[in-house]
Amino acid sequence: MKHPQLNQAGELTHLLTLEGLPKRILLQILDTAASFLTVNQREVKNVPLLRGQSVFNLFFENSTRTRTTFEIAAKRLSADVVNLDVSTSSTAKGESLLDTIDNLAAMQADTFVVRHSQSGAPFMIAQHLNKTGQQHIHVINAGDGRHAHPTQGLLDMYTIRHYKKDFTQLRVAIVGDILHSRVARSDIHALTTLGVPEIRAIGPRTLVPSTLTSMGVHLYTDMAAGLRDVDVIIMLRLQHERMRGALLPSAGEYFKHYGLTPEKLALAKPDAIVMHPGPMNRGVEIDSAVADGPQSVILPQVTFGIACRMAVMSILAGNTNT
Amino acid sequence: MKHPQLNQAGELTHLLTLEGLPKRILLQILDTAASFLTVNQREVKNVPLLRGQSVFNLFFENSTRTRTTFEIAAKRLSADVVNLDVSTSSTAKGESLLDTIDNLAAMQADTFVVRHSQSGAPFMIAQHLNKTGQQHIHVINAGDGRHAHPTQGLLDMYTIRHYKKDFTQLRVAIVGDILHSRVARSDIHALTTLGVPEIRAIGPRTLVPSTLTSMGVHLYTDMAAGLRDVDVIIMLRLQHERMRGALLPSAGEYFKHYGLTPEKLALAKPDAIVMHPGPMNRGVEIDSAVADGPQSVILPQVTFGIACRMAVMSILAGNTNT
Amino acid sequence: MKHPQLNQAGELTHLLTLEGLPKRILLQILDTAASFLTVNQREVKNVPLLRGQSVFNLFFENSTRTRTTFEIAAKRLSADVVNLDVSTSSTAKGESLLDTIDNLAAMQADTFVVRHSQSGAPFMIAQHLNKTGQQHIHVINAGDGRHAHPTQGLLDMYTIRHYKKDFTQLRVAIVGDILHSRVARSDIHALTTLGVPEIRAIGPRTLVPSTLTSMGVHLYTDMAAGLRDVDVIIMLRLQHERMRGALLPSAGEYFKHYGLTPEKLALAKPDAIVMHPGPMNRGVEIDSAVADGPQSVILPQVTFGIACRMAVMSILAGNTNT
Repeated sequence: MKHPQLNQAGELTHLLTLEGLPKRILLQILDTAASFLTVNQREVKNVPLLRGQSVFNLFFENSTRTRTTFEIAAKRLSADVVNLDVSTSSTAKGESLLDTIDNLAAMQADTFVVRHSQSGAPFMIAQHLNKTGQQHIHVINAGDGRHAHPTQGLLDMYTIRHYKKDFTQLRVAIVGDILHSRVARSDIHALTTLGVPEIRAIGPRTLVPSTLTSMGVHLYTDMAAGLRDVDVIIMLRLQHERMRGALLPSAGEYFKHYGLTPEKLALAKPDAIVMHPGPMNRGVEIDSAVADGPQSVILPQVTFGIACRMAVMSILAGNTNT
Repeated sequence: MKHPQLNQAGELTHLLTLEGLPKRILLQILDTAASFLTVNQREVKNVPLLRGQSVFNLFFENSTRTRTTFEIAAKRLSADVVNLDVSTSSTAKGESLLDTIDNLAAMQADTFVVRHSQSGAPFMIAQHLNKTGQQHIHVINAGDGRHAHPTQGLLDMYTIRHYKKDFTQLRVAIVGDILHSRVARSDIHALTTLGVPEIRAIGPRTLVPSTLTSMGVHLYTDMAAGLRDVDVIIMLRLQHERMRGALLPSAGEYFKHYGLTPEKLALAKPDAIVMHPGPMNRGVEIDSAVADGPQSVILPQVTFGIACRMAVMSILAGNTNT
Repeated sequence: MKHPQLNQAGELTHLLTLEGLPKRILLQILDTAASFLTVNQREVKNVPLLRGQSVFNLFFENSTRTRTTFEIAAKRLSADVVNLDVSTSSTAKGESLLDTIDNLAAMQADTFVVRHSQSGAPFMIAQHLNKTGQQHIHVINAGDGRHAHPTQGLLDMYTIRHYKKDFTQLRVAIVGDILHSRVARSDIHALTTLGVPEIRAIGPRTLVPSTLTSMGVHLYTDMAAGLRDVDVIIMLRLQHERMRGALLPSAGEYFKHYGLTPEKLALAKPDAIVMHPGPMNRGVEIDSAVADGPQSVILPQVTFGIACRMAVMSILAGNTNT
């Protein structure tokens, strides 16, 4: 069975996961994003590519930050954007997820941006639309459970390419709570597809699943060993609930072992870049001297993220699912 | 005294209720909606009819679904839309409803879309605007208490006309909690005006007010008898609070007697259509086999609803209240 | 050190406070607002001055009313507006204020409209943007703690000029809880700059700080004495928390002494105007006969407020901070 995010011609019609996404499509998105980056630096940042189209932000799980990036991206493409805080809407009235989707689809939606606490929800929505003759509507996964966060993965790839040009010579370290991170999962898939020869996962044993080795990822519980000679460091956000949970000692203990300080950063290559999906916990997973230091590319990531989301939306709008 | 929703020339300047709304205006709205339906199917769904106008969604009662339909309709007319969750705003600070209205009017609003838990609130607002020299601002009732939900009534009429063409040969059944339903009330007024010869109300005695007979409605407590040979079935949503209240036995009991199953549907005419204002309680008032079956027009209702709201907004914008 | 709201050329690049704002800039804003007032009365109220620009409403303190005025103003300038209810976003996840700002700035924001419960927060944000090479982003203070509410001050000045023409012959009384009022503070600064020869502060001793005398303000605890022969009366809103607090007797007592009734209003000049920033507590600080009477200019204030906010946004957009 073909993957529901590609049409018969192999073009992208939904963006659900970076797992299995062909390299040519990854590169198409990054190249398109590059063209939007210049648009975003103009005084008039709007282009009419999605004029008259309706983008629905369906956030079943609250995330003001991510919602805002999609809202900005859609508005810069001249789309009409409707934000639905779905937790307070009809689903609360006992309506099923797919009834809500059918209803919004009947309002002639063009794109659904979906955030959901359950892994697979955007996939299920896309499959339902495809099956019910509504495949002209595009679904973008804005983060589902522990599963995937493909646009974050894309902006991470954009950032790495921007600073390192060639993926095929890189050592990339991902540090922190990899077990619960949809960002890590999306990054690992994309890095692999783009030919990164060495991916390392660093973190306490409780937060780094050993199953990653089957994906070719090298596991480290020792931060010093894991960071040695890497080109790229992707720090993950430590969720507050983990700190309080049984999986971790205190935040102070965590910082001592896995917080990125200037001293630990010095073990990586001198021109290594430091990334973080935000929002940061300064003093927990990252030291302010690093976050604000010359090797940090954390804020450029945000800028690239808008361009990547514009790229995804405009590519989807150009492809029909038949 | 002339009705506050019509101007001296008999044109629509507010949409408050379908009660007493002349047939020519009902038909004007349906005809205008038909023209917008094609707009909504284009890739560029926007028309500049309300460009530069300010539409305020004043939802004193929360309803994400209905608010979204008005927001989409207004944006497709190129209006600027401001959503006001009024429950958290100045009314919470002790300001009176009419002070809030005057204040928003002074921001040069053009249209207020008003949802309120109290019957008559939109009427009171329109009357206040008319009296205070602010009659250039149009009020649309998006549901007030148990009183009226005129745009839902209009989209129901649109749906019936779309599938049945001629109102004057129809038997229409409305099923469920008619007592508390503003949808039912709006539907009955419009169906009567449009010449439907037989309207039936079906439901448990506690939920079907006997006063309906004065409106020419035939009452049925027996679902089988009520559905026999009807052309149109309008199912109503059963509010959860009713199920828990004293007015009803359990949801299961309700479904047994009044839930629309394929067996009961078979009693109606073979080409009868099934409508529902949503959100549905599957297994309570309607069986999934009916909701998703070939006679269901529940999703087309939503699509027609956007076009009807665009029609109302654009007609109002063209009429001045002097 | 130059004030962070002016650039080297002495032009406005942020609007943080009216304190120390040169008279020529105050007048530039009022004159620009006058031109927008006619725009707001047209059927098409939009002008393309901020087309393709991104305005972020950052309301760290909830205020639907004020947020709406900025949203309307920005949309009438054709900007893309993003509303961020920041209290529920990343700051709640432990992110620092300046990290949030940097993040949103990296989305290529053009203007931040900031409301914050802490005095000085917009100032700190502007200073941070200036220091970090992001001075192309403009900050507008939409109310910070007890400190300032400059756009309210501007619309008050606009209102006074509209009705009284010449500032240099006026007696202006500000009545109520001056101690906690950012509106009063902004008004006093602007009135002084514009040459108003006599400013009076009227209220109970607990709510009128004696330090005002150093700003040239005359203090009155007696309403009758304070209102005598004034041209302009600015009533302040009495916060409910004050009524319950120790600073005041009951609301009824307050109204008896400081509520503006027709009798007390008669002590002012016959053509005196009555202003109020809203939302009003009728029967607490103001009698309905006055609020709705011929001398009230409370609703025109709202209309002027939209024009003043458009003026500030468009002036800022034209100035670069280098």
